[in-house]
Amino acid sequence: MDLCAICKEKRQKCVLTPYLPANKHEKYAYLVYVFGIENVVRILNEIDPSQRQACVDSLCFEAEARVRDPVYGTVGIINDNKRRIQYLQHSLQIAQRELAMIKHGRSRL
Amino acid sequence: MDLCAICKEKRQKCVLTPYLPANKHEKYAYLVYVFGIENVVRILNEIDPSQRQACVDSLCFEAEARVRDPVYGTVGIINDNKRRIQYLQHSLQIAQRELAMIKHGRSRL
Repeated sequence: MDLCAICKEKRQKCVLTPYLPANKHEKYAYLVYVFGIENVVRILNEIDPSQRQACVDSLCFEAEARVRDPVYGTVGIINDNKRRIQYLQHSLQIAQRELAMIKHGRSRL
Repeated sequence: MDLCAICKEKRQKCVLTPYLPANKHEKYAYLVYVFGIENVVRILNEIDPSQRQACVDSLCFEAEARVRDPVYGTVGIINDNKRRIQYLQHSLQIAQRELAMIKHGRSRL
């Protein structure tokens, strides 16, 4: 199994190794830049090993989002999704109201 | 203006001070735990001062989400929102299909 980039350099094993292979240089760079590798390792050490892959994946996603959008990070994605949800709720409400009116009109015939 | 908790301790000024008052201990604790204050300060220093308040707010939100859900953090919220969007899109599609069928039936009368 490959060692992570940091461990390779320090010639040691770390908790991150099984979840992010050493050739994923970009993902490492994002993790190091946003969280610092020590914080990532500490967070990983505090959760169950069965959940560490999901944790590394979500940390990588957050880190990349922060690099792409330094001001909002994943919160920018959450805000976009909220607007999308509001738009869909509004459209659904309009369609359901129109359907209800048609069905109400029919039942009066 | 109050100094941030870290700067208060070190008796110095930092870039974080105007955006997160010293009495927000919980938010500081989350930022320190998830990102480390040095990473927060570095990210802040690299963006325009006019956007730093939004940046601190989004970092606080991300940090709190990671403390509440150490495995998924804000990615858990994004996944929930994606499921909600899919459900709404599906419901809207059904309602619009029903409306189209009713209107098509009417136009044939």
